[in-house]
Amino acid sequence: MEGGGAYNRSSRVQAAGLLPAVALLEDAALKVRLTAGSAPLVIVDYGSSEGRNSLLPIGTAVSALRARAGPTRAISVVHTDLPDNDFAALFRTVESDPETYLRDGATFVSAIGRSFYQQLLPAESVTLGWSSWAVQWLSRLPAPIPDQVQVAFSKDAGTREAFARQAAEDWRAFLAARGREMCPGARLVVLTMAVDEARDFGYRPLLHAMYAGLEDLMAERFITADELHRMAIPTVGRSHDDLAAPFVNAGSFAGLSPSHLEVFQAEDRIFNRFEGDGDAQAFGASWAAFSRASVFPTLAAALGGGRSDARFDEFLQRLEAALASRLAAAPTHMSIPLAKLLLIKA
Amino acid sequence: MEGGGAYNRSSRVQAAGLLPAVALLEDAALKVRLTAGSAPLVIVDYGSSEGRNSLLPIGTAVSALRARAGPTRAISVVHTDLPDNDFAALFRTVESDPETYLRDGATFVSAIGRSFYQQLLPAESVTLGWSSWAVQWLSRLPAPIPDQVQVAFSKDAGTREAFARQAAEDWRAFLAARGREMCPGARLVVLTMAVDEARDFGYRPLLHAMYAGLEDLMAERFITADELHRMAIPTVGRSHDDLAAPFVNAGSFAGLSPSHLEVFQAEDRIFNRFEGDGDAQAFGASWAAFSRASVFPTLAAALGGGRSDARFDEFLQRLEAALASRLAAAPTHMSIPLAKLLLIKA
Repeated sequence: MEGGGAYNRSSRVQAAGLLPAVALLEDAALKVRLTAGSAPLVIVDYGSSEGRNSLLPIGTAVSALRARAGPTRAISVVHTDLPDNDFAALFRTVESDPETYLRDGATFVSAIGRSFYQQLLPAESVTLGWSSWAVQWLSRLPAPIPDQVQVAFSKDAGTREAFARQAAEDWRAFLAARGREMCPGARLVVLTMAVDEARDFGYRPLLHAMYAGLEDLMAERFITADELHRMAIPTVGRSHDDLAAPFVNAGSFAGLSPSHLEVFQAEDRIFNRFEGDGDAQAFGASWAAFSRASVFPTLAAALGGGRSDARFDEFLQRLEAALASRLAAAPTHMSIPLAKLLLIKA
Repeated sequence: MEGGGAYNRSSRVQAAGLLPAVALLEDAALKVRLTAGSAPLVIVDYGSSEGRNSLLPIGTAVSALRARAGPTRAISVVHTDLPDNDFAALFRTVESDPETYLRDGATFVSAIGRSFYQQLLPAESVTLGWSSWAVQWLSRLPAPIPDQVQVAFSKDAGTREAFARQAAEDWRAFLAARGREMCPGARLVVLTMAVDEARDFGYRPLLHAMYAGLEDLMAERFITADELHRMAIPTVGRSHDDLAAPFVNAGSFAGLSPSHLEVFQAEDRIFNRFEGDGDAQAFGASWAAFSRASVFPTLAAALGGGRSDARFDEFLQRLEAALASRLAAAPTHMSIPLAKLLLIKA
């Protein structure tokens, strides 16, 4: 993710896509088993980024739990992300945003800067879990991608297989860790990138324009062929069956059972707005800003000097401009396949 | 604090000063009342900075609690600091430092980026508290300091009075918030800057050299008189009686009673090393690096452009060089008055 609040500012695609999952989370908060006694109710936001897109779902969950548990029961909200996440932006957002959930005097915030592919919290301590636009990020890049930055558009069968194996392993690791952390009766809602019934990852014009933009930067000798070859986004779209696989044999995995699992198409708000106003430049700029905030820093990390490469900022700017211009030339609807799940701990 | 790991690298003064308080904390961990049941034991580190100086005390406390509570009882460590603290450095330190306390599979870390002058955690949820080199930072600058950057060396009685009032108010606010958060029987160890029986704040040659260095930067027209006037470090040294004041009437305050309260002199390791090796340059450089990491960013925030002022980095460098050179010219022992307290919740 790009830090400095960029992800907070340019994540409207994610914000639109998560709305159907917020309804699942609200329902989970209304039905989840509440532990007796006065111990805090713990809500965990797995993969929070800078927090802006967490305020609506977490606020909804806090309101539902608050109504059930009364005004004095403590609710602890824990946001997790990788150590290099911009936690300053997260804490400022939660402290100061008018939409914050932190206003009833009995709700508290904390953060954990560690990978969620391991156990992050004490066993049986979590009441309600939420993870949005996060588990599509693999724990590691399993292989270079020879002909694209997103494996879904690679023609290399071996690479696609390596990513599929890593995706299956990471999904089980994520579920196993959550299964340990969740209280009996706890609920977890997951929203993640998916592939549709035709195994289409979506975003096709965007990814093709991004790769073409990178090839332009190479032709202009701004980046080298080696650098382009190293660039890869370690994300995957999972199918309905990929997501269901751990549960197929026993009906549950790590104590978790899926109560809801659905692949759906998110609304493409950027194209909808273009259909309304015909502004092709704004169309291109919006998708380019989305891409910059969510994946350009990952690509730029493959520059020879890594994150301290002198070209880092210019790389972000030039690729954003190239992408905006290519997309503005031919605005089109983008397929955005997502999956939403509700998992219940026995 | 300076981010990017600078505080972690240049805080040996603080590391030496906290050793006597670590002994208090270990004793507190061995004696503190442990809640029955399986709920996590919560250790809070109030004002963690980037975490390096927390590893020894928190590791000591975790070991003591672990021995008493058994291998599977969850221990949650919570580090708090202001929102703009470098939490990435904190999480990397806790994850990767060879001295980390995070290695038994039942100990967990999280962080809170909010001011500790308010309640940060659920009521009666904290087992053991630790705060080192932190509560000397006031919640706000109560007044400009007309003739120094550190109020202890100001000759302006009104300014000194305004700081004293704020210091008393903040100390009560800190205690009141901790009193709410701590479990019955919980213990809190505090190490903070103090003044000795003669009300001497210490660091006299350092603060005089720092102010002279700033006056040089003004004479060289690198900073303006207005900027120098705005520069102030919002820290205070409290006396034994200042720290005892909230408890004097009733013997307790916010449910907390002092079981130990002592002002002492920390070892001046920088001067000791100079006495051993006679290296005046290293003497000056060490105190300058300490000052840069702990207070220069606070001074630099008073530049016309604030933290994004184009002179920010050069200001840190020039002031560090000026301070190092002045101190190297006349190495001398530095008085370092500190206070350590053990507070017990009824």
